[in-house]
Amino acid sequence: MTNPSDNKTVTAAMLVIGDEILSGRTKDANLPHFAEELGAMGIQMKEARVVPDIEDVIVGALNELRHAYTYVFTTGGIGPTHDDITADAIAKAFGVPIDHDPRAVAILEAHYPKGHLNEARLRMARIPDGAELIENPVSHAPGFHIGNVFVMAGVPVIARSMLESVRVKLVGGKPVQSRQVNARLAEGQIAEGLGNIQNTYPDVSIGSYPFYSKGNFGVSLVLRSTEEDQLAGAETDVIALIRSLGAEPIDRAALMQGEN
Amino acid sequence: MTNPSDNKTVTAAMLVIGDEILSGRTKDANLPHFAEELGAMGIQMKEARVVPDIEDVIVGALNELRHAYTYVFTTGGIGPTHDDITADAIAKAFGVPIDHDPRAVAILEAHYPKGHLNEARLRMARIPDGAELIENPVSHAPGFHIGNVFVMAGVPVIARSMLESVRVKLVGGKPVQSRQVNARLAEGQIAEGLGNIQNTYPDVSIGSYPFYSKGNFGVSLVLRSTEEDQLAGAETDVIALIRSLGAEPIDRAALMQGEN
Repeated sequence: MTNPSDNKTVTAAMLVIGDEILSGRTKDANLPHFAEELGAMGIQMKEARVVPDIEDVIVGALNELRHAYTYVFTTGGIGPTHDDITADAIAKAFGVPIDHDPRAVAILEAHYPKGHLNEARLRMARIPDGAELIENPVSHAPGFHIGNVFVMAGVPVIARSMLESVRVKLVGGKPVQSRQVNARLAEGQIAEGLGNIQNTYPDVSIGSYPFYSKGNFGVSLVLRSTEEDQLAGAETDVIALIRSLGAEPIDRAALMQGEN
Repeated sequence: MTNPSDNKTVTAAMLVIGDEILSGRTKDANLPHFAEELGAMGIQMKEARVVPDIEDVIVGALNELRHAYTYVFTTGGIGPTHDDITADAIAKAFGVPIDHDPRAVAILEAHYPKGHLNEARLRMARIPDGAELIENPVSHAPGFHIGNVFVMAGVPVIARSMLESVRVKLVGGKPVQSRQVNARLAEGQIAEGLGNIQNTYPDVSIGSYPFYSKGNFGVSLVLRSTEEDQLAGAETDVIALIRSLGAEPIDRAALMQGEN
């Protein structure tokens, strides 16, 4: 659900690069963090893609995403090994040359003891022409941004530190506010009334998420909008709906054990 | 990295549908499970996309994915509420009508006590023309498959049970075998030798994943291939490389605390 009355929506997409996510070996932990941090800045995550370490696939996905959204954040594939092909793929997508960047080389030279900056590590200084570096306070090898694309490491602690580094460069729209109302009702009981409330408040996105666990069941209703008054109105109506069905809103803590 | 000599690769993509994943509120837990289960059946997960509850976006993503991969698995958006629009989007993508399916209605009628099968719950019996139902042993409302697309619930316990239900309908290729070798070496030390091994074994995908945690660091090397002999050769060479750098392979258990 979008906010159709808001023409100034600032959007983002995430491009997660790496065979290890698609094999199931590694669980992506960056999407939820980026989505929450960017959302709080008024940048709405609208799509995420996970692609393998294949140059043409990365290039194709990046070109689709960077033309469709305000910002694109990529994670993964910027280390020193043969499977780290993100920087070259980004250069290809933008149609620009790529080579060792003197600024990046200087950062690596300052970090590694004399004699340790071998050819493989120097690969991490390959930066597409025209890109700006993104500081990496954790392991030094920089990310970069070019156009509306921010290229970051996949290791979560590094990805997060890079997001902090670029925060000042991002311009958000109106932040999305959210409210959560929970009840021990089945989705099927509340669905009709909830649909009516959604129709009344087109600028509010109302999500309905059932949970089942250990005989515990219920529904979490999440209301999201950039418009505070619409959000408050929808929340009031949702609470009235729950009470009209003989239930009471319950707090989130009471739900935590039941969530799955 | 693909297996270029293997023309019979069976592939899959996952389409995760739901605003809650893109807001960061809910972490997708289905991709790793599906990737591992399908991988063991010789079906290689090649792409995943997360899209919001917007019909045109779902239709567009589904049409791209179903033409590009052997199988597509969707999760999310098949419940009874207004934001559950997956079934209609799938029908639109395939250009077929959608209506209450008598088989699905019968399942819901058998499940709900008399008088409880309201209009909202009946929405869960909306199935595109020509689709087959997917059994849902957990909460009864069925998923469905049409063409090469399998449409499932988002709640992990239900998604997993649906995957079990369709397992007999899936035809896999040669299963991908994997080996993991870990060492307390930096990626930059091992990168050159590892690149040489990758060039020697083009049918083996060699991934290099660094970890840092609490002063602990090292690298996990994951070798994947459908070719057992190639895999064994590459593993032998990787172990020899680690030893040539003065380190020893260490077991996975010793790494667990260091992984991030």
